[in-house]
Amino acid sequence: MNAGIIIIGDEILIGQVVDINSSWISREMNKIGFRTETVITVGDDGKSISDAIDRCLEVADVVFMTGGLGPTKDDITKKVICEKFGTELVLNEQVLANVAEMLGRRGIALTENNRGQALVPATATVINNAVGTAPGIMMEVPSNSLPERLPERSRRASRRVELVGRNKLLFSMPGVPFEMRYLMEHEIIPLIKKHYNLKPVFYKTLLLTGIAESILAEKISDWEDSLAKNVRLAYLPAYSSIRLRLSVYQPDDTTESYINAKVEELKRIVPENIIAYEDIKLEELVGKLLKDRHCTVATAESCTGGKVASLITSVSGSSEYYKGSVVSYCNEVKADVLGVSRADLEKYGAVSSTVAEQMASGVRRLLKTDYAVATTGIAGPTGGSDEKPVGTVWIAVATPTKVVSRKYVFGKDRAINIERFAASALSMLIVEMEK
Amino acid sequence: MNAGIIIIGDEILIGQVVDINSSWISREMNKIGFRTETVITVGDDGKSISDAIDRCLEVADVVFMTGGLGPTKDDITKKVICEKFGTELVLNEQVLANVAEMLGRRGIALTENNRGQALVPATATVINNAVGTAPGIMMEVPSNSLPERLPERSRRASRRVELVGRNKLLFSMPGVPFEMRYLMEHEIIPLIKKHYNLKPVFYKTLLLTGIAESILAEKISDWEDSLAKNVRLAYLPAYSSIRLRLSVYQPDDTTESYINAKVEELKRIVPENIIAYEDIKLEELVGKLLKDRHCTVATAESCTGGKVASLITSVSGSSEYYKGSVVSYCNEVKADVLGVSRADLEKYGAVSSTVAEQMASGVRRLLKTDYAVATTGIAGPTGGSDEKPVGTVWIAVATPTKVVSRKYVFGKDRAINIERFAASALSMLIVEMEK
Repeated sequence: MNAGIIIIGDEILIGQVVDINSSWISREMNKIGFRTETVITVGDDGKSISDAIDRCLEVADVVFMTGGLGPTKDDITKKVICEKFGTELVLNEQVLANVAEMLGRRGIALTENNRGQALVPATATVINNAVGTAPGIMMEVPSNSLPERLPERSRRASRRVELVGRNKLLFSMPGVPFEMRYLMEHEIIPLIKKHYNLKPVFYKTLLLTGIAESILAEKISDWEDSLAKNVRLAYLPAYSSIRLRLSVYQPDDTTESYINAKVEELKRIVPENIIAYEDIKLEELVGKLLKDRHCTVATAESCTGGKVASLITSVSGSSEYYKGSVVSYCNEVKADVLGVSRADLEKYGAVSSTVAEQMASGVRRLLKTDYAVATTGIAGPTGGSDEKPVGTVWIAVATPTKVVSRKYVFGKDRAINIERFAASALSMLIVEMEK
Repeated sequence: MNAGIIIIGDEILIGQVVDINSSWISREMNKIGFRTETVITVGDDGKSISDAIDRCLEVADVVFMTGGLGPTKDDITKKVICEKFGTELVLNEQVLANVAEMLGRRGIALTENNRGQALVPATATVINNAVGTAPGIMMEVPSNSLPERLPERSRRASRRVELVGRNKLLFSMPGVPFEMRYLMEHEIIPLIKKHYNLKPVFYKTLLLTGIAESILAEKISDWEDSLAKNVRLAYLPAYSSIRLRLSVYQPDDTTESYINAKVEELKRIVPENIIAYEDIKLEELVGKLLKDRHCTVATAESCTGGKVASLITSVSGSSEYYKGSVVSYCNEVKADVLGVSRADLEKYGAVSSTVAEQMASGVRRLLKTDYAVATTGIAGPTGGSDEKPVGTVWIAVATPTKVVSRKYVFGKDRAINIERFAASALSMLIVEMEK
């Protein structure tokens, strides 16, 4: 089944705001078996929105629109929907009460603009927005109402839908990512599952580290070929880790044990690389492992400049296991605060195994934690040498019983290097904790 | 003049990768006077790419395509271009030499896939890619070659182009952001300027802080109305700052002094809020001010968890003025490492003016810097109280002569709060330095 997405907003077309809604919607819909066929971004302009709806309905079973619903946007999306589907705006008392209540809590009176938000197309299904003032809207579009002028391919699509015996669905949502996600998770995805009578999809996600995507693909290609026909494998690579997602769209009683057996096979092929058996971020896994062990961690960062700390503390509840970081962006701080030997800094240079290990031990001692991880490297674009090129980093992990370090060499781009250094530090910490 | 953008890639349609190319292209084209009319994202599929080209050529003078050019993508974009414009792929010796040389430097031999990258449509203009193996391609599309079946609006657009007397331009670029940006900056934007005989646009960007967008808009609305007809004003808000961009599309000898006079007027209206007279990021401005003053800075972070350090060190060359940070994610570290009074932590709580100020003074002393900035607050979603709700932060700045602090209250979202806290810390540091 196909999805189409329409992103509405002048602010996106002048490059002021990066659209993060379409990738989120695509990812979530992909999980329930939909493939996004196209994403069209248009300005706050009726004709463009109307054209985009036509195009999406040609190729998709479900169409999502975000934006163009705010109180100052003149509710352009709703007007377009009315014209297109021959209906008119009517006041919805339930939505009005919701808007009034929401503003009332902040001590704000209803304006004419807010009253406009309670107007909805008469034939629409209103989707209550518990976290904002603009409601979501659903229109059911009978396949046979699609224009005659559609090309062959789209008529095929329409026939297919008729076979399924279901109308197409068009959703309009606010553009604020937080509100859009709330509506999707709590209202719209359950609605779509019900409308299309979708079976739940069975997933198993594995998190791997320490292996390049191309090498992994080669190593597991026979295993991949051996997977049953109804199992799909997706590679989702990130900095310093790869997710493997197995999806089964028509699961039955045997699915779980079948997938578990295949995972056991995989463990024998890449025994060193699987670090988690669930869909989890590196920084979340760090937190989970530390909480399980009732342990704490600290970081000492040179080249990553606070990025490792920032990732760890992006997780809510991290204060339970994370005590802090010393960002030592100069040798003086490495020596004075972390206690790195000045002689070793001189002899081996700041980017060295010795210094990384002393940083990790130093911060572990200073902040009194069980574990510590340290980074020292050259993010670039300057500061490299033949011996230690830009992209070189030494990472050390201190545990209650030992200190280990390892060198990585990445590329030339400063921002990407910092991301990779930080992700590698988290991976290395995880591997040491799981040993 | 209008631009259209086509983003190609299955990885984007399953939500695995967020498209950051289209917003970058839109922003850069906006600077030279183009408005992006639409962005269409499609998969690696010939028919979808071909349809998207038709749609973009209907509404845009210049069309950009990114992706679908890599060595493993079967060069689908190039094949579509050949079919569409009735030409065929030919081997370009110059491109082949470039690919061979680039791989040779890494000690890699040419594969058949790489050889395919040197095939280009016979009627295309090849745009040399100095930073990757896939070349850029430009096709000139005569306006009269646009299909008859176009709707009224598009025929109008075509006539307009004929008046300008220039063909439309279609560019195909690699999808790797770094390569795309290189090609745009060094080759394609200069080419477009020349093709359309564009006059350089005069810009003046001001960076403001400490004022909400809506209040700023109200305060300066008379001033905005007084601007000459050929001056455009854009609001570009970010966390804790707003950029005001004045653009003049037909500048003459008087433009600069006129704009300078209007900026002087603006300074009288919002004297407290302008912190820079150029297009610069907060973290870059921090660096510039510190370098100008030959001063250094350190940070002490609680709720921002390394984000402030991470922003400051994202700037290349920051080791010249940034010495480091203590991320104190627990009271113990605030007391033991930064020297915050345990009695005050007990009496006022960690989220207080006193503690913020002691953190700033403490890290300034510890790391021996001229300036220091400290954050302590509640990022959420838990940890708030009636007195100190989620979103509350105290920020302190220590200078060579004093310590000041201020409270801000933001929203409920953890990730957004961390961004806002960190940007506010940089803004406050800038304001204190500029005093």
